[in-house]
Parts: sequence; C-alpha cells; structure tokens
Amino acid sequence: MTRLLVVGGGAAGMSAASRAKRRQPNLDVTVVEAGGAISYSACGMPYWLGGIVPGDRDTLIVVSAQEAREDRGLDVRLDTRVESIDHDARIAVLGHDGGTSELDYDRLVLATGAAAQMPFNADGVEGVFSLRHLDDGVRAKAYVDAHKPASALVVGGGFIGLEMAEAFVQRGIKTTLIHSRDALMNGVLDEDLGAQLKEAVEAAGVRLVTGARAQAVSGSDGRVVVQAGGESFEAGVAVVGVGAAPRNELARSLGCPVGPAGALMVDASLATGVPDVWACGDAVAVTHKVTGKAMFLPLALHANRMGRIAGANATAGSEGFPGVLGTTITRFFATEVAVTGLTQEAAAQAGFDAVVATIKSGSKAKYFPESQKLQARIVAEAGSGRVLGAQIIGGHGTAKRIDTMAAALWMGATCADVENFDLAYAPPFSPVWDPWAIAARLAGRKI
Amino acid sequence: MTRLLVVGGGAAGMSAASRAKRRQPNLDVTVVEAGGAISYSACGMPYWLGGIVPGDRDTLIVVSAQEAREDRGLDVRLDTRVESIDHDARIAVLGHDGGTSELDYDRLVLATGAAAQMPFNADGVEGVFSLRHLDDGVRAKAYVDAHKPASALVVGGGFIGLEMAEAFVQRGIKTTLIHSRDALMNGVLDEDLGAQLKEAVEAAGVRLVTGARAQAVSGSDGRVVVQAGGESFEAGVAVVGVGAAPRNELARSLGCPVGPAGALMVDASLATGVPDVWACGDAVAVTHKVTGKAMFLPLALHANRMGRIAGANATAGSEGFPGVLGTTITRFFATEVAVTGLTQEAAAQAGFDAVVATIKSGSKAKYFPESQKLQARIVAEAGSGRVLGAQIIGGHGTAKRIDTMAAALWMGATCADVENFDLAYAPPFSPVWDPWAIAARLAGRKI
Repeated sequence: MTRLLVVGGGAAGMSAASRAKRRQPNLDVTVVEAGGAISYSACGMPYWLGGIVPGDRDTLIVVSAQEAREDRGLDVRLDTRVESIDHDARIAVLGHDGGTSELDYDRLVLATGAAAQMPFNADGVEGVFSLRHLDDGVRAKAYVDAHKPASALVVGGGFIGLEMAEAFVQRGIKTTLIHSRDALMNGVLDEDLGAQLKEAVEAAGVRLVTGARAQAVSGSDGRVVVQAGGESFEAGVAVVGVGAAPRNELARSLGCPVGPAGALMVDASLATGVPDVWACGDAVAVTHKVTGKAMFLPLALHANRMGRIAGANATAGSEGFPGVLGTTITRFFATEVAVTGLTQEAAAQAGFDAVVATIKSGSKAKYFPESQKLQARIVAEAGSGRVLGAQIIGGHGTAKRIDTMAAALWMGATCADVENFDLAYAPPFSPVWDPWAIAARLAGRKI
Repeated sequence: MTRLLVVGGGAAGMSAASRAKRRQPNLDVTVVEAGGAISYSACGMPYWLGGIVPGDRDTLIVVSAQEAREDRGLDVRLDTRVESIDHDARIAVLGHDGGTSELDYDRLVLATGAAAQMPFNADGVEGVFSLRHLDDGVRAKAYVDAHKPASALVVGGGFIGLEMAEAFVQRGIKTTLIHSRDALMNGVLDEDLGAQLKEAVEAAGVRLVTGARAQAVSGSDGRVVVQAGGESFEAGVAVVGVGAAPRNELARSLGCPVGPAGALMVDASLATGVPDVWACGDAVAVTHKVTGKAMFLPLALHANRMGRIAGANATAGSEGFPGVLGTTITRFFATEVAVTGLTQEAAAQAGFDAVVATIKSGSKAKYFPESQKLQARIVAEAGSGRVLGAQIIGGHGTAKRIDTMAAALWMGATCADVENFDLAYAPPFSPVWDPWAIAARLAGRKI
C-alpha cells in the first residue's frame, strides 16, 4: 500500500489529505501537525477573541482530529513535528513529547504554512501575542479572559490589526493601534481610500498612532510596553499583526526552490520539482492573474484550493492551480472594505499605464431607508480598457459586491463589459445603476 | 434648430432626452408625458405604499419636470398625450386639458412604456388598483390612507404581487394573495425554489391562494370582491399585478414592426426602421444574451440603458444596446430572491441540454452569528459547461450575490471558471468556499 505523508494539518494539508483519501481509499494517509488542532478557521480568531463568535475554541474547528481519523480514515498526529526527512530513503523523523520516531512514506505533500512575524524581540514576551495559529489565539484569549486588561496595544494596521482592534473595543478594552505607515491596510488598499478606514477606527474610540514603527517590546507583571516612533506605549496586553513568513525550512532541506519572500515555487500542478513532493497552502507562492507574477499571499481560500489540487495530483490527478486575484475583504465594525486585482499603486508598480475611476454611491435606491454610503474604484489599463483591479469601501453589507469585479477580472472584462453587465436592481438592493456600472462608465471615458 | 420629440417621460424617455441635450446643447428637446410626473422610481412604489419608504410621492421622483426644464433645458409637457403623428410631415398632434395642439419635430424617440394588464374587467373598478405608473401608486396610496381597509387582496404572485403583499402586511392589513399558478414567481424562478417563497409568504400571515385564476372583480361601498378558482374573496382594497403589455399603438401607426407580446422590434442601435424614429424602454423587445432571442422584459435598468443609447443615437451617436440576461431581484420581508440568465425550465424550453446543481450554504462562516441560510442554483450547458443561468434564494443580504453570476454569464463563463473565481472570503462575509464555487463545482461534475 502506498503511503502519503502530509506535513501540516491546516486548511491546505487537511484538504490535500482528505481529497487524496477520497480519490484513493486504499491509500495510507498520515497528517503530521505541529500544533494542537487541525483544520480550523484562523480568520475567525479575532471574532472569537472579541466575543462576537461565542463558544470555546472548538467553535473554530472545521474538522477535529478525531473526526478526521474516524470519518475520513486519516492518521492524524497532533503536537508532532517533522524533525527531518531523508527523501531518498523516503523516511521522515517525527518529534513529539515521547521522543522521536520514524515514518516511511512514498509521496509527500508539504503544507507547512506561514509563521507570524514577530520582529523587535516580541516573540515570547509575556502578554504579547500573534494570531496566526489556533494555539496563539487560545493563549491570547485565555490571557485576556484571566487578566481582564483595561487597555490593549495592537501593532500593525493590516487585516489582523484592524480585526483585533475591533475585538478589543468589542470587549470594552481601551485600544491603541500602532502602525508603521500613514495609511492603514497599505499595499492592499489605495491610500486615499484607506483614509476612510482611519476615520472609522478613530470614531470607534481607538487611539490611532500611524507612521510609527514598533522597535522594542517588553512585558512583565501584567504590563506590556511597546516602543514606537520615539514614544512608549503601555497596556495590559498586546497583539502583533505585522505579516507572516512562509515556513520553508523543511522544503529547503529537500532542495525545493523558493521565490518571493521565501515562498515555495511550484508549477501549476503544485509539484515542487523534487520527485513525489507537492506543496500547497500559505507557504507556497501563487501566481497573480493580472501581473502573471508569483507572489507570497497567504490567504485561506487559496490554501484550501491548493490543498484540494495537491491531494488530487498526489493521487495521479492532473489538476492545475489557476492563480489568484488577491481578492480580500474585511470590516471594522460597520465599515467594510474589499479589494480584487491591482490597486492604483500596485498597477503603477507593475508597469501598467492605468486609469482610475472612483465614484460615490449608495447601497440601495437613494430614497430607501438604511442605504449605506460606499465608494467604488476601478483601475483599468489605458488603451485596452481591461480592468486591472477594483476596490470598495462602505457601510454594512457593501463589501461583498467586490465579487462582481472578481468575476469580471477573472474573465478578462473591459470597462465596457462591466458597464453593460446586467446587474440586479430593486430599490432595497441597489440604485438602478449599480456602483460598478457607474465606475466602469467613468473609467471607460478615461481609457 | 433641430427638434427632438420624445414620447414618454419615464426612465427611458428622460434618459434619452437628457443625454441628447447633453450631447447636442443647441438641440430643441420636447418630452411629452401622458401622466403627471416624469422620471420616477416605479419599483419604489410598493415600499412607499407600505410605509417602508417615507415621504410624499416626490420621494420617488428622480428628476422633477421643473428640474428637467430649468437644469436640463428640456421642454417637458406633463398630462399631455400624443394623439397622432404625421411622420411624413414630421408633425405630432398633442392632446391636453386645453384641447389639442400641433408640434413640429425632426427626430422622434418613442418611450411609451408598458401598461399594467387589467384583465377580468378590473379596470376602473372602485378600490382596485394596478401599480405601474406613479399616478396609479398615488391613487392607491390615497385610497388606502383614506379608507384604512382592514383587509386587502393581491392578485398575482410575481414581483409586484409579492411586494404589495409585503406592503399591506407592513401596514397591518390582513392580506390574501391570489395567484393563477401553483408556484410564485413562476417563469422567473424554478418551481422548487419558489416553494421557499411560499413558506415565507405564509409565515408572514398572508393567506395564499394558488392555482386560482381571478375571473371577475367588482367593487362598491369600500368593498372589493374578486372571483377566483370558484371562490369569492372580499376585502377593503385590491391590487392587481398580473403583468404588463407594451404600449405600441403610436409606434404601429408609424409602421414600426412589433414582435413578441407586441413589443417593438428595433436593431441594436434602437432604430425602428422608420427613418428618424428610435424606440427605447419598456415597450421595446430586448435580446436575451443566452438564447439570442428577442423578448418582452420591461425592467428598469434596461429602460434606463436603452434611453441613454437612444438619446445618443438620435444625436448622431453610434451606440449599441448589448442585450440582457434577465437579471431580477426582489424580497419578501427577509426572504430574498434573485435570478440571472435561464432557469432550468427556461433552458429546457430554449432547447438546451442543461445540467443543474443546487446547493445549500450560509451567507457567512458557519460559526459566525447571523449567518443566513441560502440556496444557490447554477444551470449549465451539458458538454460545454457554459453557465446558462443562476438563481439564489435566502435570508437578508444574500440575493445581491447574483451579480457574481450576472458577470460570469455576461462574459460567457463555464462552470470551471466560476469554480476558480477568486471570490472574497472572511468569516463575516462568506464561507471560505463561496456558494457559487460550490454550486459550480457540483454542476461541473454533471456536465
């Protein structure tokens, strides 16, 4: 019997393992997970920590190790590390509480994920947490529940930082958000749209400190101190969300090539180039559909999708990972934001001659109660009119509209196409001219 | 100076007039409107009548006649009918309170709209209303405000019927909905999905009488009686929403060709074939992008879009109407429904060998509070996998997701494309696998 070893039991690893076993039921599939849980929703942690999502940590678990063993027939090993691999001999050395052991395998799927970046000596400091793995979230929540801090520091103004600021405010904790740049979500959202997010954060009572890079962190006796921008900030707890880095050590030890930011380079079949080794998930570089370039973009949907494909291809399948648009969405209380494709800044960096149209609209007919204000932006290529990207920021219920543009970009739509889309109109749902139609018309005039 | 005569001051006529004047400021533009208002949101009337949209009738008016005159420089004539036209001489005879008058013109845009169908002698019966034109809505609201009926009858289980049932319930009026077919919104929604709508209607306390065709209506002394399916229904007010018919009399008198359901046939430039005559709006047949066939589908967005194009082409422009997907959306209280392209039934009728995938999902991550249940359906062509249509029915905030599929259909996407779309995921917005991705995957397995 052939044995498949999957390293990492997150979304990608578990998708790969489950799909492989479904496709080839007599396959012996082992999943080795360094943490205490598999297949959980990391994205749900801020909401769980903030009490918006109730329940214990199992709420966030999609499939428990026990279910994976009993219902899916997978050999799942928690709290177990792959210490080393002799790929020529197809032997992995596993480390666990009881020591080490060896495991034979035939094919290997690497789903080692990404690690939260903890610069400025923040790692291991008392009262300072990252929020990438479920174990991080469990520790952070236990600390907050036990210490009931009156104040919190959030370092980083990206997704996790914003979501954690919401979580702390939700719990009645006085919160300071420290960000190295002037604009929140820089790199994801164009700066002028990010300004609106700043207003929302400040309106929620969060002290916002921008343009201040955190440089040192210390903690003791239930107090945490962060040095940033020449100032010293003190609070009862701190969360650091300043990015992640691919876990590539094992892959590199096997000779797998790495690319941008150290992410693993794979072909469309997710093969690493090393025989019988596939890679999937947050550790793997993805190809952006608009730029055609590989990039490190550790997002949940891609991890799940890659997992399915790696699981298929490790069982004689021939599926291809189709690339990404970098679609992302989040909210800060009632202010929602979403992006797909390239921002104006990213389009310029990628060398596109781009035009930009930004419009203000409402989420419903103007006269309809509770119509939410929104701003929509389309970035398009001059000349061809091809849509390169879109952004939306607005009130409750507006951001998922980005999917219209994600579909448009995926299909290579031009501004003229988008202007002509037959989008749904009724007064409770939209103005008669959908915001994207208006933005596309405006962009179309500029190309 | 050239004179453009626009017959009809609704969305299409006013879009045409305004665009023509903007493009050619020295053009003399006259808009002749039979009713008492131009450019209003007919779709908003049920919500206004139900008190969900507050204010007087002006709330629903997008551009008043006065604004159109003063700000846009249009010669707008309310309560004025075009009695006849001598197109060879380019003379229209207008009828109004003070008698008749003649108007010279050079080019003509017909935007005569559609009339509510009032079969079974319902027209003119006291306490019985249709709801197509603003004047209808104003009369109906005044009647309800004055008579404060304890009970209401709604004849017709399509959009207007459902929206009016909601309006009456909203006002605390005991409501009976009478529909000729077993399924609500038949022809728009596949029957099994319509069943869910039935449950919502009944859960709201509406008495639902299906499979009962209304045959006679009478009214006097503040009581209305409707005969349907062998039964007699009595109430304080009735609204009839059983469809509309194109107003084509004037066009026919000019020799313009008519097609399905009597709708005006035009080319892509919206020219009627009669020199210097364009037509736009509800009276005009539109081409369905999936079937390639002309059909009568009087919807607001198409009327607005056609108006802009007719206004451009009547001023030496060369724009084309791109066709429709028949995208529609409505709600009954918190139950929302939307459709684009062909239903399963319509695909079969159009001769497609179609496969269907229907899935149940939530609007948010499973563990996230207030995740709404939804059902999503994709209809696809066997063999090619091309998406032919999509439907969604679900709780609050779900139906506008149809736009993703409207974009997909417009661009000719296959199930494989939709499965690969990079749609937005975060726990407050969606499951990690968007419902459309799941439905597309399932459909893809069947093709």
